[in-house]
Amino acid sequence: MAKFDLVAGLLDANEVLAQQNRELFQKNKVYVINLMGVPGTGKTTVLEKIIEGLKGKISIGVVEGDLYTTKDAERIEKLGIPAVQINTKGACHLDAATVRKACLDLSLQDIELLVIENIGNLVCPAEFDLGENAKIMVISVTEGNDKPWKYPLMFRQSKLIIVNKLDLINYTDYDLEQFREDMCCINPETKIIPVSATTGLGLCELANWLYSEVKGQD
Amino acid sequence: MAKFDLVAGLLDANEVLAQQNRELFQKNKVYVINLMGVPGTGKTTVLEKIIEGLKGKISIGVVEGDLYTTKDAERIEKLGIPAVQINTKGACHLDAATVRKACLDLSLQDIELLVIENIGNLVCPAEFDLGENAKIMVISVTEGNDKPWKYPLMFRQSKLIIVNKLDLINYTDYDLEQFREDMCCINPETKIIPVSATTGLGLCELANWLYSEVKGQD
Repeated sequence: MAKFDLVAGLLDANEVLAQQNRELFQKNKVYVINLMGVPGTGKTTVLEKIIEGLKGKISIGVVEGDLYTTKDAERIEKLGIPAVQINTKGACHLDAATVRKACLDLSLQDIELLVIENIGNLVCPAEFDLGENAKIMVISVTEGNDKPWKYPLMFRQSKLIIVNKLDLINYTDYDLEQFREDMCCINPETKIIPVSATTGLGLCELANWLYSEVKGQD
Repeated sequence: MAKFDLVAGLLDANEVLAQQNRELFQKNKVYVINLMGVPGTGKTTVLEKIIEGLKGKISIGVVEGDLYTTKDAERIEKLGIPAVQINTKGACHLDAATVRKACLDLSLQDIELLVIENIGNLVCPAEFDLGENAKIMVISVTEGNDKPWKYPLMFRQSKLIIVNKLDLINYTDYDLEQFREDMCCINPETKIIPVSATTGLGLCELANWLYSEVKGQD
């Protein structure tokens, strides 16, 4: 008896649409980031700092994913950056089709770097390809050292992990060297940049890395 | 044309099994907590402190939900408490059937308080009834003030919200009064207990509240 695997079917369909997104992005020469992390890790704040660091050097557009509210897109628009808010109304991840629709509201031909901020969640967002060039994860030193082994898929797939809230590290038992060691097992290719979106530490390195990534694709 | 709503079907089936769990728990006079929150908010650490506070007063059992690893169940067993680890291997929430299976490994008749620590995720765990008496959420002051409106279902359903990492509040812009005000709109019935699992602040109130809940059901 053939068993119909529903989840596999959904993921296959998503992969077809993700490939179409990839072609659309390539045609428009847009470098696309899928920005992931838990709720409250500082994804939007880090994104605001990335925008400050790259403004005037690279044209940026943003797709904001949230279950409800338009707070995040409003924060980005205040910086003079075009932003589209997706409200998934309960769904715990973005998929390729939803991102494609959101992109209709952006002038992709005028954008060099498109940041898609995914739903705050370490599980399902890692499973749905959006057609991005790179998955980037934000984690925080306040979240503890046990996450890479508990949520390995997202850590394995990330091209860059931004370790945020470095200003709080001395008030926690977070061990950055332990994290580097764990990542060395999980994915030694992943770039790690510790930052503090509050004090500014590491943001220059982060902006430079992104600039090279975006310009490197030309 | 009748549209088959797959998600609604899954949730209906879960509700039937959750009701069976509820009957099983009632028969054994177990008070059951579904403990939820983002990865890294301190669910397991708070649970360790709850166990310390209630040990000798109430008999406790634990079901630990994680995608991978048995780290959390090992932490709980070190405290002399029976713990069963569920590894969902990719699924982003626990459901009633999985919890039922895990309960087969516990002597429910010897347990007064069963804590089910859910997968670290603010979205799907709120949608799946496990047959619990109370949903309890852990949030942290490092996660920012915008979460109740972004993830309203979990906040609305929680009987108690433990606001953790209070020792870090002065290093963040977290506004506890704003949170109380937001919760007053979202669910004014929700009890709020700010704690620091590190310094011990608020843990006595938390243990007392839980003790009353468990003993109150007799």
